[in-house]
Amino acid sequence: MQDMKNLFFILSFLTSAAAFLFALYLYLWVKKQKIGNNEIIRVSRLIKEGAETFMRREYKLLGAFALAVSVVILIILPKPIWQGSVLTNIAMVISYIAGTILSAIAGKIGIMVATLSNGRTAEAAERGLKDAFLVGFRGGAVMGLLVVGCSLFGVAAVLMLVGDTSILLGFSFGASSLALFAKAGGGIFTKTADVSADLTGKVELGIAEDDPRNPAVIADNVGDNVGDVAGMGADLFDSNVAAMTSALVIASSLGSLVYRNIEMVFCYAILGLLSSIIGIATARVGKDGNPTKALNSSTYVTTAIFLVLTAAATALIEGFSWRIWGSSATGLIVGIIIGLTTDYFTDDTKPIVRKVAHASASGPAFTILSGTSYGFISAFPAMAGIAISALISYKLCEPLGEGYAIFGIAMAAVGMLSIVGMIISNDAYGPVVDNARGLAEMGGLGEETIRIADELDSAGNTVKAVTKGFSIGAAGLTVISLLGAFMAETNEVLQAAGRELITGFDIMDPTVFFGVLVGAAIPAVFSAMLILGVDRNAQRMVAEIHRQFNTIAGLKEGHATPEYAKCIDIATKGALRELIPAGLFAIVATIIVGFIGGAMAIGGFLLGNIVSGLLLALFMSNSGGLWDNSKKYVESGAEGGKGSDAHKAAVIGDTVGDPYKDTAGPSINTQITVVSLVASLCSSLFVAFSIF
Amino acid sequence: MQDMKNLFFILSFLTSAAAFLFALYLYLWVKKQKIGNNEIIRVSRLIKEGAETFMRREYKLLGAFALAVSVVILIILPKPIWQGSVLTNIAMVISYIAGTILSAIAGKIGIMVATLSNGRTAEAAERGLKDAFLVGFRGGAVMGLLVVGCSLFGVAAVLMLVGDTSILLGFSFGASSLALFAKAGGGIFTKTADVSADLTGKVELGIAEDDPRNPAVIADNVGDNVGDVAGMGADLFDSNVAAMTSALVIASSLGSLVYRNIEMVFCYAILGLLSSIIGIATARVGKDGNPTKALNSSTYVTTAIFLVLTAAATALIEGFSWRIWGSSATGLIVGIIIGLTTDYFTDDTKPIVRKVAHASASGPAFTILSGTSYGFISAFPAMAGIAISALISYKLCEPLGEGYAIFGIAMAAVGMLSIVGMIISNDAYGPVVDNARGLAEMGGLGEETIRIADELDSAGNTVKAVTKGFSIGAAGLTVISLLGAFMAETNEVLQAAGRELITGFDIMDPTVFFGVLVGAAIPAVFSAMLILGVDRNAQRMVAEIHRQFNTIAGLKEGHATPEYAKCIDIATKGALRELIPAGLFAIVATIIVGFIGGAMAIGGFLLGNIVSGLLLALFMSNSGGLWDNSKKYVESGAEGGKGSDAHKAAVIGDTVGDPYKDTAGPSINTQITVVSLVASLCSSLFVAFSIF
Repeated sequence: MQDMKNLFFILSFLTSAAAFLFALYLYLWVKKQKIGNNEIIRVSRLIKEGAETFMRREYKLLGAFALAVSVVILIILPKPIWQGSVLTNIAMVISYIAGTILSAIAGKIGIMVATLSNGRTAEAAERGLKDAFLVGFRGGAVMGLLVVGCSLFGVAAVLMLVGDTSILLGFSFGASSLALFAKAGGGIFTKTADVSADLTGKVELGIAEDDPRNPAVIADNVGDNVGDVAGMGADLFDSNVAAMTSALVIASSLGSLVYRNIEMVFCYAILGLLSSIIGIATARVGKDGNPTKALNSSTYVTTAIFLVLTAAATALIEGFSWRIWGSSATGLIVGIIIGLTTDYFTDDTKPIVRKVAHASASGPAFTILSGTSYGFISAFPAMAGIAISALISYKLCEPLGEGYAIFGIAMAAVGMLSIVGMIISNDAYGPVVDNARGLAEMGGLGEETIRIADELDSAGNTVKAVTKGFSIGAAGLTVISLLGAFMAETNEVLQAAGRELITGFDIMDPTVFFGVLVGAAIPAVFSAMLILGVDRNAQRMVAEIHRQFNTIAGLKEGHATPEYAKCIDIATKGALRELIPAGLFAIVATIIVGFIGGAMAIGGFLLGNIVSGLLLALFMSNSGGLWDNSKKYVESGAEGGKGSDAHKAAVIGDTVGDPYKDTAGPSINTQITVVSLVASLCSSLFVAFSIF
Repeated sequence: MQDMKNLFFILSFLTSAAAFLFALYLYLWVKKQKIGNNEIIRVSRLIKEGAETFMRREYKLLGAFALAVSVVILIILPKPIWQGSVLTNIAMVISYIAGTILSAIAGKIGIMVATLSNGRTAEAAERGLKDAFLVGFRGGAVMGLLVVGCSLFGVAAVLMLVGDTSILLGFSFGASSLALFAKAGGGIFTKTADVSADLTGKVELGIAEDDPRNPAVIADNVGDNVGDVAGMGADLFDSNVAAMTSALVIASSLGSLVYRNIEMVFCYAILGLLSSIIGIATARVGKDGNPTKALNSSTYVTTAIFLVLTAAATALIEGFSWRIWGSSATGLIVGIIIGLTTDYFTDDTKPIVRKVAHASASGPAFTILSGTSYGFISAFPAMAGIAISALISYKLCEPLGEGYAIFGIAMAAVGMLSIVGMIISNDAYGPVVDNARGLAEMGGLGEETIRIADELDSAGNTVKAVTKGFSIGAAGLTVISLLGAFMAETNEVLQAAGRELITGFDIMDPTVFFGVLVGAAIPAVFSAMLILGVDRNAQRMVAEIHRQFNTIAGLKEGHATPEYAKCIDIATKGALRELIPAGLFAIVATIIVGFIGGAMAIGGFLLGNIVSGLLLALFMSNSGGLWDNSKKYVESGAEGGKGSDAHKAAVIGDTVGDPYKDTAGPSINTQITVVSLVASLCSSLFVAFSIF
């Protein structure tokens, strides 16, 4: 049996290696694409430098944070050193640091390739849609492959070396804590720049989105990369690691057939990565094809391949259960359904976006009210979907034996995230083509090229909505299984202490209830802190832009170059200043609740956190996407088109939606994962030292 | 023992009678106040007629709804007639109808007195602040006394006649279902009129709020009455009845000392009403006094009297426990703390309102973003407060015996609602003086009088924020105890069927979890439906106002009278059309979840509903109040004052906040109560017929 497990470790390393090699191939392929326009080279270098500066400074700060956390872990986790073994604590520290470093490497390389691809995509657009799509997509796919490769490699390596799934929680926490700050920091950066550029450029001066006269325009393009490439990549790295970790922690608590179940987790992860590689390799768009369809059909192809491969594995390998295959398929299918509902609420060919655009004609208050309302409604199908998939996968696996029901939910999360390589590729495609569109305009590449770039960009926006819904759904299921992992961890501690085990968290128990109410308030406060961060930061940047327009002679007329670096600097400093308090708040609140109410309060706390986190994340992501697209719909000529009152109102809606959908909404995912992992990691402390 | 209980029934009737007599005295006192200005008489008659028309048509619709529900109850509740006793079902129907009728009577008379007081308050303002305050306050206090009197009388009468607390659930459901629609309908009416009047008057034409040229101005004043007097009254009638009912249902399931506990519930309710009567009778403001302070200090006086009287009762009456007194005091004190936090976030002398006003200077998007963020943050202390008070009251009463812990939470809710007579009086004071301010302007009463009316109005707004926080907190605690009542009811059914009893709702059980996620989405969809209702309705009314300005010659110049009735008609029809779907959605969703997942899913469903309901209600009420007051703050001269860009942005914030704070936010309270009662009522059906 042990040999078989080693086989899966080796297979994991081989598959990761294949993903890395394929990513290298794509990188070299993108690199050899022609780039010749001097203006494009100049501007894309500015973007690259801006992004790299931000990443360097962010990682420096996070390095200091990780160091501080490492010291804390060394002293008290999984047990205070005066009670447990120092070696275990050291293993935990190394595991934690490995999680942060792998996440950082994936983000760093992803950014490098994305900023390499944007200019090349713009020039490829001169040759037509087909070529440009391929350059943009492959530039993004490098990130997708790296993230999944790193997570599979990391989880397999940590587990092979230490052989204890509890230590994996440290690895997952490393990935999560980096993701929390990368997502929040990147999200604050990107929206600071975007909001400021829009308000001063589009609204005040009436110039185009990517007009080079706007001092914030480079910062805006940098923001797309650090927010959507690095941030989203770190987010999904985190979700993927967390899903595997919780499945592995639960698997190892099942008593019987531990190895078989652990193998199954790795097998599904390996097949998911293989499916993504095939999906990425075959993604193409015809000469006059539709890039949205191309991206979506690659997703469906990947899904189908994954389902077939896992079915084959289940049929061939002894002890692999069809029930678990069913759970995993349920998760994946529900993920796609959530993506489709999101699409319904945010696609401008569907009625909702048009209704909000129509409401905008009556003024901005109606834009906000209708968008908020549909955003709330859009959360319903996704939450019901997650609830139903959890229920189905639980009931499917319940007959397999005690503890298997929760394992079923964990495998649903693993299933949902199996195609994450494809999802990230689609997502990272967005900022690449968004940048390319800007570069095409700044490089003066002509109307037809800009039109093609526009088409690619619009596909990126549509697909982004789907991937966001998907990643929120995945986080939801993952965190449910993390709740199971928390219980498993706590019971291990309780058993060692010879105390009574926990069988569940009863909501009629007031400590649980106390946890639920407090936990539910956390995502609200967390997202509010991020939004206020963007708010404050954007006000600083708007002031700087006004200063430049007022003091730099000839800037408005296009005779002078704005000081782009100043805006990048403001966005960077502000993002770094604002990202720590929100993240720290969530972590500290968890620890306080744990010390007040112990394991019971934490169980409730995690539930409250998941529930309101899902609700708010879905609401914010969807209403933000809805406002964005309804603005674009008005700009395409509806309700009076550009310059009309409806347009002004729609722009206000879009500005409100920007930090919703790109800062707060997607950071909530990570917040709930981080909080769940902190809970599991500290379970022995809560058991030992709580007040109630 | 039985005699003692009868004694408390008699005392309940006597205290209710005292409240009714005192209300009659106040009514006669208000009626004999001088009113002479012809314009005021004319306009206040228009308001009165408009409000009465709306109420008549609303009650007609709700009568039809109640009839339909009665038929359903007759056939299936508490048990299908082919299984249980027809007589019990008939008792349930009568109890249900009594709940709706008492709620309707209180609303009807409250409106009558409020619309009688507004003109008299305006004229009293000519004689000074002191007189005007007294007329306005006493006009509102009639509603406060009636609501509490009716609820105490009704609960005592139903329990005395049928002797079964389960049947009380029908009475409470009658109160709730009427409140749901009265609050939602009144809320839609008032905000339709308010938003339309503001947008066309203040924003488009730049005329004053109560300018008689605006066709929506009467509808706006009618709205204040049907929303804040009738709607809020029905809401708190419902909360008060629900708190008593759940305490009584739990008390009767306690096994030992049932009568003593039931007596205690009545004793606390009686003493609460007495304290409110004293508080109302002594409310005064000096000649140059501060009306806000007068209202708040009456609340504190009432609180202190209640605490002293209940302490005395506990000391004197054998078997009354100090632990229960402690629980009830905890609830009341936490209620006041929630009110004070609300005040911190919505008072324009405090920093938050000023920050939002300052953000408005950067444009409306920042008004919305900062207001939304602070709204989310404001939910945290209130939710933590409710969580802590539930925890404390549970732990306090746990040593009294099995089941007492939940009884402690129920008594905390009773305690929090004990001073509800005072709370409603303060709340109903708001629309009276708001109307008075408008009437003073329309009647041309001179600057000094308008200034006094303004001061009274502003006090109304500040106090309203506190009472709203209070009523949300009370609903929170009540619904927790309703969860206990649901469990008690379900166990009664299970015991009768010889099945295993429920001991709690474990969140690791996927049926519970399924319920939690779906339940959490309900308040979001419910409030979205109401907001969209206001949205649609306001668009219709804005169109009508534009039509009048365009077609009625001389209207803009003030030479012609607008067709006020048309606007009232649109608000009425729209409100009635939009109120049913949202309420029905919540009720039907509960029933579907119950039939899918049975009692377990419903337990989770109620929890999810409470948690997200509290979060959204607090967020919406507080951000709405915040925007309202930051607009007023700008209008007082800050950030450029009236007409500045900051003012335009602040007006947009206020418009968004209007349906948040006066339609959706306060209706969520009622929604969670209704859903909890539906669950308890249908418990036997869910146990018998669920899928899982």
